[in-house]
Amino acid sequence: MLDRIRIVLIGTGHPGNCGATARAMKTMGLDHLAFVTPRCDPFDEEAQARASGAEDILNSARMFESLDQAVQDCTLVVGCSARSRTLPWPMISPRELSRRLPSELKGRGDAPGKVAIVFGREDSGLSNDELQRCNQHVHIQANPGYSSLNLAAAVQVLCYECRQGWLEAESDPGNVALDETALEKAKGSETAHEKMPFGVTWDHPLASHDDLERFFTHLETSLTRSGFHRPDNPRQLMARLRRLYLRARLDTVEVNILRGMLTEFDKHTPND
Amino acid sequence: MLDRIRIVLIGTGHPGNCGATARAMKTMGLDHLAFVTPRCDPFDEEAQARASGAEDILNSARMFESLDQAVQDCTLVVGCSARSRTLPWPMISPRELSRRLPSELKGRGDAPGKVAIVFGREDSGLSNDELQRCNQHVHIQANPGYSSLNLAAAVQVLCYECRQGWLEAESDPGNVALDETALEKAKGSETAHEKMPFGVTWDHPLASHDDLERFFTHLETSLTRSGFHRPDNPRQLMARLRRLYLRARLDTVEVNILRGMLTEFDKHTPND
Repeated sequence: MLDRIRIVLIGTGHPGNCGATARAMKTMGLDHLAFVTPRCDPFDEEAQARASGAEDILNSARMFESLDQAVQDCTLVVGCSARSRTLPWPMISPRELSRRLPSELKGRGDAPGKVAIVFGREDSGLSNDELQRCNQHVHIQANPGYSSLNLAAAVQVLCYECRQGWLEAESDPGNVALDETALEKAKGSETAHEKMPFGVTWDHPLASHDDLERFFTHLETSLTRSGFHRPDNPRQLMARLRRLYLRARLDTVEVNILRGMLTEFDKHTPND
Repeated sequence: MLDRIRIVLIGTGHPGNCGATARAMKTMGLDHLAFVTPRCDPFDEEAQARASGAEDILNSARMFESLDQAVQDCTLVVGCSARSRTLPWPMISPRELSRRLPSELKGRGDAPGKVAIVFGREDSGLSNDELQRCNQHVHIQANPGYSSLNLAAAVQVLCYECRQGWLEAESDPGNVALDETALEKAKGSETAHEKMPFGVTWDHPLASHDDLERFFTHLETSLTRSGFHRPDNPRQLMARLRRLYLRARLDTVEVNILRGMLTEFDKHTPND
C-alpha cells in the first residue's frame, strides 16, 4: 500500500534536505521520491551523506519539469501548506490524512489509488498556482509562534502518519475511512472498508490529475471564448472553479460529461 | 501543559543534531532541553545554524552529569528505544504517549506532573542501564528493514505527538482540521469558526437547497438549448450532474459563478 505514495519536493534548495527526505521516507517504508526543478544538485555528496543508508531511495528519485508531470497519474494530490491563503482550500491534518489514506489507496473498482504528497521550497513553500493544483492541503499544526519545520522534518511527520494509517488499517480494517461522510459509519464495521455508504461501491474510477488539468484548460478556453472569463481581469474565477471541481473528486465519467458540455457550448461561441 | 515536558539527549555526538532538536522542539511548542554528557559541543556554530530560529531553546538547554540528575524532578520518564531488549519493559507507541500525556501532566492532587522523554546516542541509543531508569519505553514503529531515524527526526515525531495530545485534550471542534466534515460542523458552531486551523474559516456560506434547485433547473435548460441534453433521451445526465454538485457542497459564490457561466453561454445558444 505504501508503495502507491509519492513524495514530491518542489524547488528544494539544500542537498542535505534531499538526502534527509530520502532517509525519512525509508524509515517509514516509503520508496517513491520525485524532484521538481530543484535549486540544487539533489544527488551531491552532502545529499548522499544525509541519506545515510537511504541512498537507494535518493538515487532512484525521478526528475520532473513541472508539478503536473510529477503527479499526472495520481488520484489524490495533497499539498503541504504552512500558511493560510486568501482562498481557503479543503484542509486536513496529518492525522486525518492518516485515517483516509487506506481507502484512498484502495481506490475505486479495479483502479487502485495513487497519492502524491507535495512539499514546497524551504524559504517560500508552495506557490498559489501549485497549491491550486492540489485536491487538498495538509497542515501540520505547529507552534504559531514558530512554525518553520525543517523540510525533512515535515516529510518525516507526514511519512510517519502515512505508516500509522497503514498499520492501523492492518490491525483494524473497520477503521478504514471511506470518504468524509462514511468515516464515522465505517468505524467498527468489519465490511465497511469494502463499501461505500449503504453498500454501494462507486461506479467509475477517479479521474487522474492529467484528466483534470486538461478539463481545466478546456474550461478556461471555453469561458474566455464565451466572454465570461477575462484573462486581463481574472479575479479569482479559475481558482474558485478549480477548488470546486478538485474538492468534488471527479470520476472519469463526470470529467467526460463536463468536457462534452463545453464542446457543445464551444460550437455556439465565437472561434476567433 | 507542554512546558512541563523535558527533552533529554544523552551522549549526543553531532552538534547539528543538537541544533535540529531545538528547532524540532520549538516548532511543536516545547521549551525545555537537557543534555547529558554530550560527546560534542552542543552549542557550536553548526548547532546554532541547524537551530535556525530556535537558538533560544538551544542556548538555554541545561547540562547534566547523569540521566538521574536530568530527570530527578520528573513524574514520568519515557525512554525512546529503537530495539527490543532482552528484558521486556512497558512499551508504548508515540500515539499512546500522546493520548496519556494530558493526564500524566495534570498529575495527581495539587502536584502537576513533569514528563521527560529521553533520547540516546546516534550510534548506540540508550544503554540497558539507562533504559532501566525509565518508567516506560516509547518505540516509533518504523520500517523493520531500515529503522534508523535521524535523532532530530525521532525528536520531531515525539514532539509532534506531544502537541497532538495537547491539542486533542483541548478538544473543541476548532481543533479538528478543516476538512469537509469539520467544515459542516463548523457552520453551526461559532467557536469553531474562530478556532479553525490558523484562523481559516470557509469564505462563504453554503448554498441553500433552493439556490441549488434553481441552479439545476437553469443547468438543464441551458444544456437542452445547447443540444447536449435530450429530454427525450436523458440517460443519467442530470442525475450524474446533481450527484457531482450536491457532493461538492457548493457555497453561495460558487452557485453564482456557475449560473453566471450558464447565462453567458445562453447568450450564444438558440432561444427557441
